[in-house]
Amino acid sequence: MNKIENPDRSTWAEILKRPTQTYDQIESTVLEIFDNIKSYGDSAVKQYTEKFDGILINNLEVQQDEINTSVNELSQDLKEAIELAKKNIEVFHQAQKTTPVSVETAPGVICWQEKRPIQKVGLYIPGGTAPLFSTILMLAIPAKIAGCKEVVLCTPPDKNGNINPAILFTAQLCGIDKIYKVGGIQAIGAMTFGTESISKVYKIFGPGNQFVTVAKQMATKYNVSIDMPAGPSELLIVADDTADASFVASDLLSQAEHGVDSQVILVSTSKGLIVSVEDEINTQLVQLPRKSIAEKAIANSKLIYVKDHKTALELIDEYGPEHFIVATNDNAFYVDNIANAGSVFIGNYTPESAGDYASGTNHTLPTNGYAKQYSGVNLDSFTKSMTFQELSPEGIKNIGNAIELMAEAEGLQAHKNAVTLRLNKLAKN
Amino acid sequence: MNKIENPDRSTWAEILKRPTQTYDQIESTVLEIFDNIKSYGDSAVKQYTEKFDGILINNLEVQQDEINTSVNELSQDLKEAIELAKKNIEVFHQAQKTTPVSVETAPGVICWQEKRPIQKVGLYIPGGTAPLFSTILMLAIPAKIAGCKEVVLCTPPDKNGNINPAILFTAQLCGIDKIYKVGGIQAIGAMTFGTESISKVYKIFGPGNQFVTVAKQMATKYNVSIDMPAGPSELLIVADDTADASFVASDLLSQAEHGVDSQVILVSTSKGLIVSVEDEINTQLVQLPRKSIAEKAIANSKLIYVKDHKTALELIDEYGPEHFIVATNDNAFYVDNIANAGSVFIGNYTPESAGDYASGTNHTLPTNGYAKQYSGVNLDSFTKSMTFQELSPEGIKNIGNAIELMAEAEGLQAHKNAVTLRLNKLAKN
Repeated sequence: MNKIENPDRSTWAEILKRPTQTYDQIESTVLEIFDNIKSYGDSAVKQYTEKFDGILINNLEVQQDEINTSVNELSQDLKEAIELAKKNIEVFHQAQKTTPVSVETAPGVICWQEKRPIQKVGLYIPGGTAPLFSTILMLAIPAKIAGCKEVVLCTPPDKNGNINPAILFTAQLCGIDKIYKVGGIQAIGAMTFGTESISKVYKIFGPGNQFVTVAKQMATKYNVSIDMPAGPSELLIVADDTADASFVASDLLSQAEHGVDSQVILVSTSKGLIVSVEDEINTQLVQLPRKSIAEKAIANSKLIYVKDHKTALELIDEYGPEHFIVATNDNAFYVDNIANAGSVFIGNYTPESAGDYASGTNHTLPTNGYAKQYSGVNLDSFTKSMTFQELSPEGIKNIGNAIELMAEAEGLQAHKNAVTLRLNKLAKN
Repeated sequence: MNKIENPDRSTWAEILKRPTQTYDQIESTVLEIFDNIKSYGDSAVKQYTEKFDGILINNLEVQQDEINTSVNELSQDLKEAIELAKKNIEVFHQAQKTTPVSVETAPGVICWQEKRPIQKVGLYIPGGTAPLFSTILMLAIPAKIAGCKEVVLCTPPDKNGNINPAILFTAQLCGIDKIYKVGGIQAIGAMTFGTESISKVYKIFGPGNQFVTVAKQMATKYNVSIDMPAGPSELLIVADDTADASFVASDLLSQAEHGVDSQVILVSTSKGLIVSVEDEINTQLVQLPRKSIAEKAIANSKLIYVKDHKTALELIDEYGPEHFIVATNDNAFYVDNIANAGSVFIGNYTPESAGDYASGTNHTLPTNGYAKQYSGVNLDSFTKSMTFQELSPEGIKNIGNAIELMAEAEGLQAHKNAVTLRLNKLAKN
């Protein structure tokens, strides 16, 4: 762990620097796979699945009997836990629904804004050792509430051609339309171009390794949009003597176990707390099954002492953390003033895990400083806002002249004509 | 004009195809300019301005006395027109403000969502023959309502080092913090990296030529976001015998005068209307100052006859027009059911020009089919949504067990520990 005391403001950028990643080598692989999927559809998808996942899949779509079997394998406790999480996530995202905004901006000029669902969305869920079924909840629930017509899910099969039962259970619980056994670059390519079996979608959501990340980025060149740019997961905690060092340490470790490149930062106005947290980390770390991963992330972590909350806030805003835990004697100060953070966890009894799974907030959040300009996934991520306007004859009379003047000043005569013709007709009547 | 009757569904994709553009050659130019701006700041910006705009600018920032002089040059009529447009745009975007969404998802688990402003935004306004001061209204007004702390504007100087008076007037009227005399790739580079004079921003908005388009795309590789992907402007009109052919023609021409690559489509259930519109276009076209541009766009335009409104709607949804004018005997059918469009103009007295300038809606809209998944610029474009959560001891007791089960099932023991430690502590008390 790197302990830093009262860093000079001129060094903040350097201290808070995230490791940059370049994926240039991967791009050519992605392009090749995309080209083949575009040309050969399912057969290319199956070929790559055999190559990368080591299994030949004849039927890419998961069948109902596979889902039924899986559901029976899962413990009742876990099913109930997933159902509880689903309920909370549903309640929170349902509350984000908005009604159309309608205004008569001038007499006879009615403008309104409405959010309508993105018709076709694709969710990517990584497989492997950690089956991220919780991410299905985070993506499928708002997609369904938004009213997306088609919600498909791609996830890689294991060596036997199966999908983890918790993934199948959760996907079915959330009403996913179709589940495909396909992962990696080929999954993103299939959803970008469409194949005989797999629907082309308008927007792709979900986490993934570096190959998936580059593939999603590449998909945006083919009229598909994506949830947000990806980067390693991050947690920044601000804590003082009112925090519990063992809780703080456990939260830092829960972030650290995600991957060796996880970003873990503690900012504190208490030197005592920093020492206690360090001790606690050492105690807790040894007991973790993912110790070797967490150890590496912790080695790169930063424990930063600053003299007061004001300085802490400025430093945190410069970083823009994905996850931000606040456990101080003045939490309201941070909550009221933080400008850049993905999701904020307040107080000693709000671990990041709560938001990762079951509090109701979304866990798909902006990393890599993107909290400065990106929202985390929310209901609006599955809609687009459209505007409407209707002018009555009175309306065009009221604003027509202003339009004519502005169009002329911009040198756009035909724009002006479209108004003049209408005004002339009304003058004649 | 290309007349198409009752096209078979299998040909829709081909008929509605937009010309694809590849900008690979421009990328290396953009990279070189970006690199130099990153290394040499203002001096590189000035060098490129001299090279591309033919003028050496000593002071990149526009000074107050230049603004004052410009303001005096502008006619009172035009100022009042701009002020009227500003008022309408303000009213409509102000109405888009939302209040935090707060829910107790389970007893003791409070989650809320708040939109907070993006702190620093940059607006790009092209110069040249058509000074797009209207775009300043569309971008600066929502930025100010959202509460963005820093709103800067870049626009290229003319050969004498001046900025069009209407641009300066509008920028000042909207309360832009700083106006810089810099255009093209160098403007986007300067806002991406920051220079001695020009602020680095988090998000860049605004239209531009192909160089600006590629530069904006490139900026996204450096932790900057952009309003949306760019493409040539588009208008699709659906009209039947209840429409006025001269109005329809004038609207098609107002789109066509934007550029030779503008997309212009008429869909109609009336063969008679198609003939009348064609005649009207020929009559109106000859009188336009931008005739040569409009002529080329019109030559590529499409007049499509379909048998009924239902077919028309499906075809239009497959296209996803940026601007969509509805002038039929059943406008409600289109308004209620259209899934993919940027902005919708309803009835005979609602020309596209209205939304371009003064109705109140935003004219920065998704082109190139992106209406399928992107919103036009709106108040939310200048904010990001953040989530907050606070669990009481009761709250963690209520959902803690579910979190533990799910974390364990995902193989993330440290995530579970963060909850277990807290539950244990509460059990002891």
